[in-house]
Amino acid sequence: MSTKKTSLKDIAQKAGVSTALVSYVLNGKEKESRVGQEIAIKIRQIAAELNYQPNHLAKSLRSGKTHTIGLIIADISNPFFANIARVVEDEAKHNGYTVIIGSSDENADKSRDLLDVLINRQVDGFIIVSSEHSELQIHYLKDKNIPFVLLDRYFPEIQTDFVSTDHYQASYEAGVHLIKNGYRRIGMIAYDSQMFHMQERIRGYLDSFENNKLESKKSWLKQIRITNIENGVKEAIDELMNANEPVDSLLFATYSLAINGLKYINELKLRVPADLGIVSFGQAEVFELYQCPITYLKQPIVLLGKTAVELLVKKLKDNVNEPAQILMKAELIERASSESKPNSSI
Amino acid sequence: MSTKKTSLKDIAQKAGVSTALVSYVLNGKEKESRVGQEIAIKIRQIAAELNYQPNHLAKSLRSGKTHTIGLIIADISNPFFANIARVVEDEAKHNGYTVIIGSSDENADKSRDLLDVLINRQVDGFIIVSSEHSELQIHYLKDKNIPFVLLDRYFPEIQTDFVSTDHYQASYEAGVHLIKNGYRRIGMIAYDSQMFHMQERIRGYLDSFENNKLESKKSWLKQIRITNIENGVKEAIDELMNANEPVDSLLFATYSLAINGLKYINELKLRVPADLGIVSFGQAEVFELYQCPITYLKQPIVLLGKTAVELLVKKLKDNVNEPAQILMKAELIERASSESKPNSSI
Repeated sequence: MSTKKTSLKDIAQKAGVSTALVSYVLNGKEKESRVGQEIAIKIRQIAAELNYQPNHLAKSLRSGKTHTIGLIIADISNPFFANIARVVEDEAKHNGYTVIIGSSDENADKSRDLLDVLINRQVDGFIIVSSEHSELQIHYLKDKNIPFVLLDRYFPEIQTDFVSTDHYQASYEAGVHLIKNGYRRIGMIAYDSQMFHMQERIRGYLDSFENNKLESKKSWLKQIRITNIENGVKEAIDELMNANEPVDSLLFATYSLAINGLKYINELKLRVPADLGIVSFGQAEVFELYQCPITYLKQPIVLLGKTAVELLVKKLKDNVNEPAQILMKAELIERASSESKPNSSI
Repeated sequence: MSTKKTSLKDIAQKAGVSTALVSYVLNGKEKESRVGQEIAIKIRQIAAELNYQPNHLAKSLRSGKTHTIGLIIADISNPFFANIARVVEDEAKHNGYTVIIGSSDENADKSRDLLDVLINRQVDGFIIVSSEHSELQIHYLKDKNIPFVLLDRYFPEIQTDFVSTDHYQASYEAGVHLIKNGYRRIGMIAYDSQMFHMQERIRGYLDSFENNKLESKKSWLKQIRITNIENGVKEAIDELMNANEPVDSLLFATYSLAINGLKYINELKLRVPADLGIVSFGQAEVFELYQCPITYLKQPIVLLGKTAVELLVKKLKDNVNEPAQILMKAELIERASSESKPNSSI
């Protein structure tokens, strides 16, 4: 469509400044180089008038790199992923990369579409929060030698780089914490999912009984469909509370499960922790502003996001391929919702 | 890198099924066509083994379209934008488009980078939640005839298509609601921003006094820097509550301001609404789970997102260019946080 392409020099001449200055401004570096705001605005205005278009594509053809990272998250409307996306973006920017995001909505088909779209758009590499049944996509990336790092979730049977919370350990600690504080009939509400991170969270919960030589009941573990969260959580809580021996506490395996559970617990006018102790995975503003502050497992969002970017950038820059599999510890933030039972003893 | 490209036919032969069936499965349409899950998995496995890569680029070169929409939001870690992104994605998918998301973090430079990156990656068009000082980018898109629709925010001095909440009307109604319920010293905490939507929210608040012939004080309006939310909100609340005549109610101009304010109000052990009535823009789970349910202005997230996609898709498909400027009404959801003062009269 265009005739002659506008160069930085054209803009510099018209603005009466140096080409270097134009380059600084148009690359968003005016702050570092202390260019006055008026000059920066003038340069941008002239650039717009002259239809200047930075030629990323040409640059990347020369370098073979686009300096773009594709980030695929499992659900953009979940604050955990939205916040981690923010961290990935900030860290990528520090390293000179732009992030393009796609959300798979926990759907493997959608995640495959996004990968296709982003591969065709020549991102240099991927950071991926995998959805269930997406193993083939990971094999595909490996086969094609497309650099990627898995974030927060991984497939133990596939050799990949990943950065993840130690989901087993976190869940185990939550169980032990409740036991120590005098709770004995601890329920867990989790997803009905084959994803490894969810299996690990369940395993940690179960082991917290076993290693403390306490009995647990199968009926205390409720697994619900991700497509039926609201009703699933209600039914689970009804069953757990209407049993002959109702549970005295609950571990929520995810933030979304907790939100729905906490709403329903309010509706039922249950008192926390007197009627029901609570611990949840994930962090959320809600946990601070609830009727009673909620104990939660704080996932290391900033460290997870930063490390994922670092690993990927190292792969991209140095073409290094040492395997890196990093598990990080979640921190149990103790609040009133799981405080010691009055007559607790262990 | 590849030698001979794998075709759908190659996969069909190896799987012993029809090419049409392979196409269905690899385009994620097995549900509609009732293909058995086992066959679908087998087809995908063979596709992966044979290194099949769907050739979107070739397809788009034929059609001149990539069927990709670029969505630029102002801050991915804000649930309002994250939720609207989810709606845009769902609606785009219904229309056969994939969405690539970028978050500008309310920063015009970053938003320009994202536009550059996505234009070079040949998205068909944009949906944009603009950040402050990004007017030149909008002019640029217009000059280049790149289709776009502005979402939630627009520049009244630039002729563009947009879908937005009527920010003035919403804020005005919040003010009138508080006045009607007996509040007289109504404070507002807003951003110090030249963005039109923020100016409109402030104007609506001020007019609610004027049109009801009530006096308002300049000192009741606090405008704080988006880079200093936490401390800014605390200082604002301190000033408003420690004045000779403290305010009796507060209107928060955004969700983020409200979250910070509600935390601090908890710290100060103020009772809502007895000590302080509250109304906030935006919807959030927190508003339901606070010490007292919070009255809020519910922005029409689903309708905003859907309409933006509809408008953009119409532009892309029919090359229609009728201007469309749509304002939608926010709904005041009345909860206990702003209930009538015991001795209220108007």
